[in-house]
Amino acid sequence: MAHGEFERIERLRAIFGEPAAPDVGIGDDAAILNPAGPVIATVDAAVEGVHFRRDLLSLSDASSRAIEAAASDVAAMGGDLCGRGCGLLLAWTLPRSLSDEDFDALLVGARRAADRLSTHIVGGNLASSETLSLTTTALGRCLGAPIARNGARPGDVIAVSGPIGAAALGLRALLSGRGDDPEFAPFIARWRAPRARVDIARDVALHATAAIDISDGLAQDAGHLARASRCGLLLFPEQIPMLEGQRSAAVKLGLEAQASALHGGEDYEVLATGPRARFGAAWTTIGEVIDGAGVFVREGGVRRVVEGRGWDHFAR
Amino acid sequence: MAHGEFERIERLRAIFGEPAAPDVGIGDDAAILNPAGPVIATVDAAVEGVHFRRDLLSLSDASSRAIEAAASDVAAMGGDLCGRGCGLLLAWTLPRSLSDEDFDALLVGARRAADRLSTHIVGGNLASSETLSLTTTALGRCLGAPIARNGARPGDVIAVSGPIGAAALGLRALLSGRGDDPEFAPFIARWRAPRARVDIARDVALHATAAIDISDGLAQDAGHLARASRCGLLLFPEQIPMLEGQRSAAVKLGLEAQASALHGGEDYEVLATGPRARFGAAWTTIGEVIDGAGVFVREGGVRRVVEGRGWDHFAR
Repeated sequence: MAHGEFERIERLRAIFGEPAAPDVGIGDDAAILNPAGPVIATVDAAVEGVHFRRDLLSLSDASSRAIEAAASDVAAMGGDLCGRGCGLLLAWTLPRSLSDEDFDALLVGARRAADRLSTHIVGGNLASSETLSLTTTALGRCLGAPIARNGARPGDVIAVSGPIGAAALGLRALLSGRGDDPEFAPFIARWRAPRARVDIARDVALHATAAIDISDGLAQDAGHLARASRCGLLLFPEQIPMLEGQRSAAVKLGLEAQASALHGGEDYEVLATGPRARFGAAWTTIGEVIDGAGVFVREGGVRRVVEGRGWDHFAR
Repeated sequence: MAHGEFERIERLRAIFGEPAAPDVGIGDDAAILNPAGPVIATVDAAVEGVHFRRDLLSLSDASSRAIEAAASDVAAMGGDLCGRGCGLLLAWTLPRSLSDEDFDALLVGARRAADRLSTHIVGGNLASSETLSLTTTALGRCLGAPIARNGARPGDVIAVSGPIGAAALGLRALLSGRGDDPEFAPFIARWRAPRARVDIARDVALHATAAIDISDGLAQDAGHLARASRCGLLLFPEQIPMLEGQRSAAVKLGLEAQASALHGGEDYEVLATGPRARFGAAWTTIGEVIDGAGVFVREGGVRRVVEGRGWDHFAR
């Protein structure tokens, strides 16, 4: 028998603890935060059957992942979730059939992500629904100037914060029933346990002219940045960083590694633009900002347009 | 044929407009807000089939109502949503079958509520789901000291900001198929179109010792405040403010007006405690804070315990 809502809020308080930062935390009508400067505010939903499936992802991983996804948007603005005025609000809709063990798994995953991000869960909402959904509001701080999508300038380089395409291969391996093949283990781990790149957010804040989270797919999200900045982005696919073994893993799954890096999505990495000299070792340069409009790739001296075809919830 | 996600975000931008307050708004990874002081942060979900049904509530009313419900939590902390650093983030999960007309109705309702609350929709998230849900993050400002649930002291009076029980009668009228009876029209309007009491939030901030939104039911929410404040609450049921005709409407629906006021929920009013002299004409005194624990009513000179039995999503 599942606990009632208020018993669950008590359980939640026990696992999440009383947040140190806000004046008022879990269990009141709202949280009170005292930010020292501008607040980065974003919300992101993870819906069972759309963003995750329980046969592919444990509930604790689903819960961590939902928070990391929201945190990734904060990182892409040049912020993190540590310190005064920062925190998470978790709005969960839970099927009545969800057991107390499942509920605890969600709590444990959320606590793990909050700890990794050095932040607090300051509030939230529990409601019943036929569909399990995990909606995270992340309230972050700026580590410099907030960086939007619209500041890229021709001449800037395009850099990414880590390997691209690996998470999509991991998901593909799971969907094709090859989750037990050890060759795919690092790719599956990339998909199951993404880590928002708050560790490089200061680079974004101090050095980038524009930045975007590329979880919807490199080409598609690059297109959003190009449109917002009113310029073109030229990508060099052979420079896209990949995990060791990524090309052969792609082949084994019947995919082409570069195409899945351009379109696969699921990577919680940041794409940033800015002066070449400003990007340190954590970044890989994969292209340059050009005059014009749209996203292009240059392969073997030939330039061609790339259409974004990453994730669009309503197109499938 | 429904539009794609990015076309819908464009439509959303067209109806919501570019927010004046934040530096970065709809369409970037996150919004940037510049609050002048403490931030009141809350999140609330409205799930189809749980919180509303389309045969009882239009989608535009459902959308307004979802926002007013979140704003009500802000009002109960002594805040509103106007001005610097304030705003709404809307995370909607939408069935694939939702038409563009239905989507527009949601947008119109959200815009109406945001306008009424003099606030901005600064961001959000669209995702597909089998279940329509409307999750609102409200970021408000404090109009004085933030008021939690834990400051009530014996000797304080208990006051409410408006009529109690009317909305629950309206819902009952709709559920019993009597929505066309004009006698129930004002009660149905109270249920369909609640207005968060941001207009009395300054009173809360300046004069209350504790406050709570009573949308889960007067007795149940009073119980939360009593527990948080480690005191007892004694209510005088005959003093509970009601709409004109509420007693006869209750009788017609086979209910007892006082019981439905104590337990019905659905009222987005604020219960506050504090010194008697501090509550002006907008408030009605309905009881007093006493030593002890729990919620009591006094009727005909007899005091009896009242158990909260308002809405609990997981108990039904």
